[in-house]
Amino acid sequence: MVDIATRVYNHKWKIDPIVRSLIDTDFYKLLMCQSVFRNRPDTHVTFSLINRSKDIRLAEMIDEGELREQLDHVRSLSLTRGESTWMRGNTFYGKRQMFRSDFMEWFEKLRLPAYQLEKRDGQYELTFEGKWPEVMLWEIPALAILMELRSRAVLNGMKKFELQVLYARAMTKLWEKIERLQALDGLRIADFGTRRRHSYLWQDWCVQAMIEGLGEKFTGTSNCLIAMKRDLEAVGTNAHELPMVYSALAESDEELAQAPYQVLRDWHEEHSGNLRIILPDTYGTRGFLENAPDWLAGWTGIRVDSGDPAIGAETAIEWWKSRGEDPTQKLIIFSDGLDTDKIIELHRQFQGRVKTSFGWGTLLTNDFRGLAPGDALAPFSLVCKAMSAEGRPTVKLSDNPNKAMGPDTEIERYKRVFGVGEQEALEVVV
Amino acid sequence: MVDIATRVYNHKWKIDPIVRSLIDTDFYKLLMCQSVFRNRPDTHVTFSLINRSKDIRLAEMIDEGELREQLDHVRSLSLTRGESTWMRGNTFYGKRQMFRSDFMEWFEKLRLPAYQLEKRDGQYELTFEGKWPEVMLWEIPALAILMELRSRAVLNGMKKFELQVLYARAMTKLWEKIERLQALDGLRIADFGTRRRHSYLWQDWCVQAMIEGLGEKFTGTSNCLIAMKRDLEAVGTNAHELPMVYSALAESDEELAQAPYQVLRDWHEEHSGNLRIILPDTYGTRGFLENAPDWLAGWTGIRVDSGDPAIGAETAIEWWKSRGEDPTQKLIIFSDGLDTDKIIELHRQFQGRVKTSFGWGTLLTNDFRGLAPGDALAPFSLVCKAMSAEGRPTVKLSDNPNKAMGPDTEIERYKRVFGVGEQEALEVVV
Repeated sequence: MVDIATRVYNHKWKIDPIVRSLIDTDFYKLLMCQSVFRNRPDTHVTFSLINRSKDIRLAEMIDEGELREQLDHVRSLSLTRGESTWMRGNTFYGKRQMFRSDFMEWFEKLRLPAYQLEKRDGQYELTFEGKWPEVMLWEIPALAILMELRSRAVLNGMKKFELQVLYARAMTKLWEKIERLQALDGLRIADFGTRRRHSYLWQDWCVQAMIEGLGEKFTGTSNCLIAMKRDLEAVGTNAHELPMVYSALAESDEELAQAPYQVLRDWHEEHSGNLRIILPDTYGTRGFLENAPDWLAGWTGIRVDSGDPAIGAETAIEWWKSRGEDPTQKLIIFSDGLDTDKIIELHRQFQGRVKTSFGWGTLLTNDFRGLAPGDALAPFSLVCKAMSAEGRPTVKLSDNPNKAMGPDTEIERYKRVFGVGEQEALEVVV
Repeated sequence: MVDIATRVYNHKWKIDPIVRSLIDTDFYKLLMCQSVFRNRPDTHVTFSLINRSKDIRLAEMIDEGELREQLDHVRSLSLTRGESTWMRGNTFYGKRQMFRSDFMEWFEKLRLPAYQLEKRDGQYELTFEGKWPEVMLWEIPALAILMELRSRAVLNGMKKFELQVLYARAMTKLWEKIERLQALDGLRIADFGTRRRHSYLWQDWCVQAMIEGLGEKFTGTSNCLIAMKRDLEAVGTNAHELPMVYSALAESDEELAQAPYQVLRDWHEEHSGNLRIILPDTYGTRGFLENAPDWLAGWTGIRVDSGDPAIGAETAIEWWKSRGEDPTQKLIIFSDGLDTDKIIELHRQFQGRVKTSFGWGTLLTNDFRGLAPGDALAPFSLVCKAMSAEGRPTVKLSDNPNKAMGPDTEIERYKRVFGVGEQEALEVVV
């Protein structure tokens, strides 16, 4: 029997919306948003989309009208009663009422602000301007929309069984990865793949496959909507945008040198336990840790998000030891460009020396490499970053010079202020 | 939206029937049935199921109650109005009214006869007795039911995503075969996989994948229900049961020697063109062709169904030449144990020398080799054969002694009568 009502309902959508919920976003965006809402609510920021994969000419593949429709659809969304209830009532890392009432009241009324869209050199220039707590929520939906519209552009040319076999291959590929991970005793791994996913439905499939295939080794997803829908823990902590904006706002080199610590001081007041995770690489991990105040050594863990991850982890372990902390009681979260081989290698290398956890991103939710003609569905490196705060440019260095962002003169200044020396350049895969 | 009615409807089935239509069978069974209905309607025959793969202990895997329910369900089926209309109105090999009115009237009233079921040594002994035109129609549903109940027995232990990945792998595997076949110019290939299919739905998927993937190179399916549903040509001609039963009825060695030709004499009266396909291997191809009457050399083609297929084809080509026929105008249908490598090899070897066509069976519709733990879904060799006619045993020799059937003394007699010498023993894969 065909359900006529369902069929008619599906066909009367003006568009097929990619982002259908304001919580179809990373949990840490909401955590950071609350922190910004409290500490820097009126800071004026600009966020921009940057396609690091210049050969993927998005403006030639994706119709501007379709892109605008998708972005406009996100602007029509507001938090639903059920989503609000989930955020207010849920336990995150064992703690209830993670989100304060004043923040929730503001979030319930929120609509995402306007966007500016232009085409240049075969790419879209997509910019968001306004108050930080509002603008920052554009990051994940903007990325998800561009990623999925690119997928759709490629899929549009494929026939029915070609499509089915494409997904069959992608499923098989992921399942073979999961089967290899099953063998790792004590593995803890989460989905961090919202921003670069092939599509929403595909991310949801991947998460369900992880649930069945890994059981308790799968610790949750960063995607709040999927966490809600699949009854999982929403996971994540904080990201580079906090130190980037705080640093841009610094009035002097002395203030700049303290800005990344100020971020964590604000965070320390608000959060405890598993949310106290240091992201040390924004301006070079080594200098950050050397100059860190002692109270930071008491935090739960460190997230390694650029550079050689084994070196990053060794650096963290040495630092804890130098501050009189026991590394076996500390947590290292690996989250940069992971895939099965690297996860297995890191898990084995650090087992027993430190607690580890993996935030598996693009190659969990978008590993379509080799599956479409011309590799047209391979993931690519799209980001959406804070570009300026109060008119001043932001800077990111990270532990890999290929990931550095900002005006050259500012990059030099930051390198000097944070004492960043030689860095090893590594290819940015995704 | 859940369609409540569909959900309720699906759940109120007492069983999930495997065979839901009397035309969920091979086209050649219906063609042969009509021929038998006309020429030998009252012959009393016995058909039995034989599992050549003794290590697959079907009676230990499949519940007897479930098996009986499935067989009983088939006995409740009768030809529907739409099925009758399709058979009466369809064009087969360009000819209308392939099925005569008297046959259709009989078929519309038909219910399949009773069965006898016993367990022995971990196997089911399933036997059908009665009038030939009725009993013969049990062959395909009986095989399809046993094959699919075995699949279900294995699938029952699998979880949701494990299942999805199982089918994803099977789809990918078939699609990769299809992609290799796409490259063959002038390929003509049909689905002959009903009897050994993994399941009905899977066969239907395979057929649709062939439609999309091979286009005009895919010439049809032997399954009438799928041919009707997917608007394809139903293909097939005749099988070993005709010479086996005719031979068993022979009153003397002289009559026996003529019996296989008598089958084709009856067939010759009824059918022309692409239905005039010789199946020469029942009692050895070489002797059959050497002793064949000249009018048989005028037939359209030869089906090669046992022994080394290249040798079989060379034998046929030599025979046509010896009878003054032009082999390039003749058709060879390969139908024994085919898979991609063999199809490609045979296609290349005989291109330009003879017309070729492929009837792809088990490894089209049941290639789950290597896809389940313990290879528990690998296809196996199940057949359902005429065992006796009017109380006399039937015999099959074929071009492979491993496929020989019948009492030893009768096998010796047949070998003598048909002048079968040394034969090369080949492993029976499926």
